[in-house]
Amino acid sequence: MTAADGDIHEAIMTATLDAVCTHGYADLTMQDIADEFDKSKSLLHYHYDTKADLFVAFLDYLIDNFEDRLDELTETDSPLDARFKRYIDWFAVDPDEPERYSLHLALLEMRTQAPHTKRFQERFARSDELATTAFAELIEEGQASGEFATDIDPIDLGRLCFVTMDGARARQLTIGKPGYAKAVGATLFEAVIKPRLRNEE
Amino acid sequence: MTAADGDIHEAIMTATLDAVCTHGYADLTMQDIADEFDKSKSLLHYHYDTKADLFVAFLDYLIDNFEDRLDELTETDSPLDARFKRYIDWFAVDPDEPERYSLHLALLEMRTQAPHTKRFQERFARSDELATTAFAELIEEGQASGEFATDIDPIDLGRLCFVTMDGARARQLTIGKPGYAKAVGATLFEAVIKPRLRNEE
Repeated sequence: MTAADGDIHEAIMTATLDAVCTHGYADLTMQDIADEFDKSKSLLHYHYDTKADLFVAFLDYLIDNFEDRLDELTETDSPLDARFKRYIDWFAVDPDEPERYSLHLALLEMRTQAPHTKRFQERFARSDELATTAFAELIEEGQASGEFATDIDPIDLGRLCFVTMDGARARQLTIGKPGYAKAVGATLFEAVIKPRLRNEE
Repeated sequence: MTAADGDIHEAIMTATLDAVCTHGYADLTMQDIADEFDKSKSLLHYHYDTKADLFVAFLDYLIDNFEDRLDELTETDSPLDARFKRYIDWFAVDPDEPERYSLHLALLEMRTQAPHTKRFQERFARSDELATTAFAELIEEGQASGEFATDIDPIDLGRLCFVTMDGARARQLTIGKPGYAKAVGATLFEAVIKPRLRNEE
C-alpha cells in the first residue's frame, strides 16, 4: 500500500464511521457513505464492490484501532488494581459520548448479522478473543507475581470479565439506562477482582 | 377476554413464534405470520394493525411465559447451589435446540431496535428486571439463611449474574461457538457463586 492508498483508505474508513454513527448499520447505503466522503462515489466503488466488502474492511480497521488502544488500557506502569479498573471502565458507554454510543449500537446491529455473514463472524470472534486475552493477561501477570489468587484459570476468568462488560454495554445501549455498564463494572471489580487481589488485603 | 379470544390470541402468538424462528425479525412480514396461521390474514389485521403492534404483544407473551418458568427455575425444594446452577444453565442455548436458538437470535435483532421503539424498550427493560430479580432473590434468601456470604448487595450481584449470562448467550448466538454460554456459566458458578456458598466449604 502506497502512502496515497493509505490516505484514501483512512478517508474511506472515516467517512464510514461518520455515516454509520448517523444512520446506523441496517438502513445505511453506499450513497450515505459517499455523502460523508469528500471524494467521488466511483472511487468508493473502485475500492469496495458492496456494502458487506466495505464493512469487512471497516471491522478490520476498528480491530486495528482496538489493538493499539489495548496496549494503553492494560500495559502501563500503574498498579494492577488500577489497570483492571481502567480496562473495565473502558467498556462503559454513556450518552455524553454520542458518536461512540452510535458506533456501538451499529456494531450490535452488525453482530446480529454475523450468523449469516461468515466474514463478519470471523471479525467479531477475533475482537472477542483480543478483549478476553487482555483480561486474561492481567490475571496471568498477577498470578505470576503473587498479586492475584490462583483459584481460577486466567482464560476462563478473562472470558467472564469480557462477556460481563460486553453484555452490560449491550444492555445499556438497548435499554437506555445511563450508568448501567458503569454500575456493572463496579460490581465486577468489587465482587470478582478485588477479593482476588492480594495487595488489597 | 372470552375463551375464544384467548384461543385466537394463543394461535396468533404461536404463528408469530413459528414465523420469527423461520425468518428472523428484520425481514419478517405480516404475510409470513399469516402463512403460519391457520386462520385468515384479515383476522390477524383485525387484532393487530402493524408488525410493531403484533411484536409488542409477542414480547408480552414471552415475558408471561418467562415469569411462569422462573418459578420452576428458582423456587423449588432443592439446595441453593443446585438452584443457582439450574438457573445459570437455563441461559445456555445450543444449536441442538434450533427453535430456541432462532428465537433468541430474533430477540437480539429486536433488541437492537429498542432504542428507536419505546414500546420494545419497555418490554426488554421489564424482562431484564425479572431475570435480575430472580438471581437477587436466590442471593437474598441465602444471605437470610446464612448460606450465602453477605459481602455484596444482592441486587448488584444479581444484575452481574444476569448480564454475564445474557452477554454469554448473545455472543454464542452471534459467534456461533457451541458450548460458549455453558462454559461461561460454569466459570460464573465456580468464581462468583461457589466461593460465597457457606455449605460448600
